Amino acid sequence: MIRFNKPDVEQFFRTFSIQLFKVSPDESQCIFSTNISGKYNLWAIDLPNTFPYPLTFKDQSCHGISYDKQGRFIIASFDQDGDENAQIYALPTIGGELKSIRVQEGKQHVQSILSNDGSKLYYTSNKDNSTFLNTYVYDLLSEDETVLYQGEKAPTFLVGKSPEGQSLAFLEFYTKTSSRAFVMRDGENFYITPLEGQDHTFTDLLYTSEDEIYFTSNVESDFPHLSRFDINTRQISKVIEVEGEEFSTLKLDKERNLLYIVSKKGVVDLLYQFNLLSKELIQVDIPVSIINQLEVAESGNIYILGQTATKPMNIYKFHIGQAEWSCLTNLNVSGISEQLMTQPEVFRYPSYDGLEIEALFFQARKEVNNGHVILWIHGGPQEAECQSFRALFQFLTYYGYSVVMPNFRGSTGYGLSFTKMVEQEWGEGPRLDSIEVLEYLFENNKADRDKIFLMGSSFGGYMSLLLHGRHPEYFKAVVDIFGIGNLFTFIESVPEHWKLGMHKLIGHPVKDKQKLIEYSPDTYLETMRKPMLIIQGANDFRMVISESDHIVESLRKKGRDVQYIVFEDEGHGFAKKENEMKAYRAILDFFNQYL
Amino acid sequence: MIRFNKPDVEQFFRTFSIQLFKVSPDESQCIFSTNISGKYNLWAIDLPNTFPYPLTFKDQSCHGISYDKQGRFIIASFDQDGDENAQIYALPTIGGELKSIRVQEGKQHVQSILSNDGSKLYYTSNKDNSTFLNTYVYDLLSEDETVLYQGEKAPTFLVGKSPEGQSLAFLEFYTKTSSRAFVMRDGENFYITPLEGQDHTFTDLLYTSEDEIYFTSNVESDFPHLSRFDINTRQISKVIEVEGEEFSTLKLDKERNLLYIVSKKGVVDLLYQFNLLSKELIQVDIPVSIINQLEVAESGNIYILGQTATKPMNIYKFHIGQAEWSCLTNLNVSGISEQLMTQPEVFRYPSYDGLEIEALFFQARKEVNNGHVILWIHGGPQEAECQSFRALFQFLTYYGYSVVMPNFRGSTGYGLSFTKMVEQEWGEGPRLDSIEVLEYLFENNKADRDKIFLMGSSFGGYMSLLLHGRHPEYFKAVVDIFGIGNLFTFIESVPEHWKLGMHKLIGHPVKDKQKLIEYSPDTYLETMRKPMLIIQGANDFRMVISESDHIVESLRKKGRDVQYIVFEDEGHGFAKKENEMKAYRAILDFFNQYL
Repeated sequence: MIRFNKPDVEQFFRTFSIQLFKVSPDESQCIFSTNISGKYNLWAIDLPNTFPYPLTFKDQSCHGISYDKQGRFIIASFDQDGDENAQIYALPTIGGELKSIRVQEGKQHVQSILSNDGSKLYYTSNKDNSTFLNTYVYDLLSEDETVLYQGEKAPTFLVGKSPEGQSLAFLEFYTKTSSRAFVMRDGENFYITPLEGQDHTFTDLLYTSEDEIYFTSNVESDFPHLSRFDINTRQISKVIEVEGEEFSTLKLDKERNLLYIVSKKGVVDLLYQFNLLSKELIQVDIPVSIINQLEVAESGNIYILGQTATKPMNIYKFHIGQAEWSCLTNLNVSGISEQLMTQPEVFRYPSYDGLEIEALFFQARKEVNNGHVILWIHGGPQEAECQSFRALFQFLTYYGYSVVMPNFRGSTGYGLSFTKMVEQEWGEGPRLDSIEVLEYLFENNKADRDKIFLMGSSFGGYMSLLLHGRHPEYFKAVVDIFGIGNLFTFIESVPEHWKLGMHKLIGHPVKDKQKLIEYSPDTYLETMRKPMLIIQGANDFRMVISESDHIVESLRKKGRDVQYIVFEDEGHGFAKKENEMKAYRAILDFFNQYL
Repeated sequence: MIRFNKPDVEQFFRTFSIQLFKVSPDESQCIFSTNISGKYNLWAIDLPNTFPYPLTFKDQSCHGISYDKQGRFIIASFDQDGDENAQIYALPTIGGELKSIRVQEGKQHVQSILSNDGSKLYYTSNKDNSTFLNTYVYDLLSEDETVLYQGEKAPTFLVGKSPEGQSLAFLEFYTKTSSRAFVMRDGENFYITPLEGQDHTFTDLLYTSEDEIYFTSNVESDFPHLSRFDINTRQISKVIEVEGEEFSTLKLDKERNLLYIVSKKGVVDLLYQFNLLSKELIQVDIPVSIINQLEVAESGNIYILGQTATKPMNIYKFHIGQAEWSCLTNLNVSGISEQLMTQPEVFRYPSYDGLEIEALFFQARKEVNNGHVILWIHGGPQEAECQSFRALFQFLTYYGYSVVMPNFRGSTGYGLSFTKMVEQEWGEGPRLDSIEVLEYLFENNKADRDKIFLMGSSFGGYMSLLLHGRHPEYFKAVVDIFGIGNLFTFIESVPEHWKLGMHKLIGHPVKDKQKLIEYSPDTYLETMRKPMLIIQGANDFRMVISESDHIVESLRKKGRDVQYIVFEDEGHGFAKKENEMKAYRAILDFFNQYL
């Protein structure tokens, strides 16, 4: 039998993805944005056949799709080369010309909602109000446009429209941990949740009728739950919550009076069906561990875009009649079967102060295990690692490394107060939680004290630098990808109107000066004595290259072993697959030196 | 309702295609070479799901796929940038590494056949015998190679292997209208068909047992038919023929003693099922008008790669159990529904000497018809236009032009003697047949004598030039794509060992000098008075650019209106889609000037 070589790093990163999808009202067509042709375009399948055909050749990321309810056309928005300035176009459902609807270079057009008759388009844009945004209604036939709301206090987004269009719902977005929603009806605006009291966030909102809104928020509990707002009485009432879970996306099956709720339970997503009449909450079995998008058709059929740790993003359909799921797409890692992918262990450990932290542990398969564990610090910091498909971790475990990733305090998925614990505490709790996960592995014989590497990107790069400076004894070598070396510079780097948020998240450069010095990695250059690989994007405006240059020069002057890779055509994150593959091949080579 | 613009020329030429396919022995996987990602790669579908995933990222055309009978690996061959030098690789069935098996730059490796146990690979190559080729057997395990046959009289290709491998069948290929097959068994070689008598060709050949070969050829009739060869008695016997049809591809359903036969009936393909026991011949309904590839699985299921005039190449499966066809792929023209495509009329007309000629007529739809008819001369010349999907014709009819295309004498599909009628008669019969189709249209009120354009590519370009020179009064304007201007230069341009064939096909430059002058378009520059568009590839070694330059210069000196487009990165034919689209847009603009 012919012997083939081990899969190369490239194979792991050549995976395709799906950004989002939409199903036609009659469920005969499913449209999605995928990069199976190399770049993102809209493709479609004519169900039940699942062979895709292209609708666009624009080679750009899609930010949203609306399907005309009569099935006559599609509204879709695309940005340009990742600039996130979504522009709105119409196109025929079989593909063809992209007709510009709302296009203004350098401006965003988001949150578009198409009226039931397909004649009006509601959307939010920064075109006339760059800081707080305005919401507009555009008439597709007369081409007239009206401003519906001008943002005043915070960036304000359209988030809902009542079925008949008598009222609209808006969200004022203050920070990642603070937002407020309000309703506009009959020329009057009124907040859904109280203005006083704790900060809270909204994760989703939908109208069930002209008079009633259901929403998920943490207004009445630390974990987002389901609440109801009566537009007439202006009263909110808590409907249901599940302890320790964060409710997010809501979808309505109006015909059957069912509400579908996506819920985050630590590192996995669950799907619930809530009966609006009987108030019964049932968990629905799903074929994925992470739900990226949920849609419910009029027929009651459920569509999910989702993934597991071992299988990339795919679209699944739940046939309500047959009561079974089928996979409409078939994205995998080319040449590597799912059986060879690593399923992570999930565990919880008590941190230095007793706080329970959840972590994922991708253990290298026995046949290849080199005994080394990489501590991976996620970015954000108000994000989390979860049971999603990550080519990086699969690639590392395939090559013999185990990877542990704590969802340190500040991570999302564990209630609002947990997420807020990183605010103005960047250099303290998250750092100690990261050290404690290693101690937990040592105690449980899952890692060897002499065989630990450290790596992270963005906030994770920052934390890798800080951990290196403050706890060098733990690590054999350190990789920093797009990491922040100095918090003062970082706070300065953001646009003026984001500064308030940055002060709340990190600290004030004057008032909190001492703390920011203590939390800045470059305070500890002296103790960064382990071999290091630093990866930097030349166009990164958050982590400016001069700062990385400075750290590298300083360390090299001290005789430290520092490898430095600068990508001339990258900013803060990898936009180009070739660069990403080059970086990860370099990281593997780097770690391999220190086995 | 939103109004969209008319589809652009680009949409018509953005169609994807499938080069070839193979179904795994258990029919769980179908592998095919397609350019849905922009360039050709192998993709697969895991049936019954039809969402494709990539197996290769080589971006090269595939020339053949063999599937190991135990389903362990695939053997596939690819050329490099269209050089037609197929190299042989192995790859895992789920994709991954392409392992070089028989790779030698600049050399061809073709006709590969994998042994039943997957350990040996039979193939033909020009690597040690550049003119007549050798056939080898390569051991995939020991990596030993043996020469099985050295070509002696003509390029000799392996075309069959008996089930147990006791005998092999070879084809000596003299010209397009003359080939001979022989069998090699027990160290002895013997011809299947008589060496004396008429030229004939083989269109397919297969072993039904160690002792019996079925083949399609025109050895005993002008139209290729089914014959049987008894290896023991060395006798051939005619099995079955259908009047006026050319049998070609054969596939065996051994279990059910059925032979499937593809048959060409003028401009369409038919599929027959022939029962080897009862000798019954049944026509099988098929969902296509042209069969590009036929495969029959052990289960009896039939797979076809095929197309119609209005729908591009797709793979279809006939489920023997359900007795119905389903389409496994879904290639269409993006943004243009099949209903808007033109279905050609097929008609026959008597030519100047009474010979019946078949022609296709793509009539512009009434709403857009500009009344003009383009006479299209196909290439070859020993080829034919048929009911296949041609973006060019659909595009022209969509923009208001009708297109007529005669399968003039010399075309394939009408018996061997018809095909041979162009030999050494390039400038005579085919030219008059082309004029007669116009007269037929005039007589039948299908075209207006004052509204005729002329266009062709390769031989069709040659004929467009010749028709222009000899019958300028018929045409308003002429387009020549990669056409031959002088037959002497053309005969000189081919490699030495092709020359004999060229003399047989076109004529001898010394013996037939007078005729070749008469048949060379540049003899008639004086009368080429109509506006002309000439399209030339700078790297065309058949129709060398200096000759086109000369024609253009000469005509311009005479004050003629000649537009000249040279593609610096093309040879004899369009390899690059961008160039093709540019050319056809220029052609449309050119014709539009003369409406």
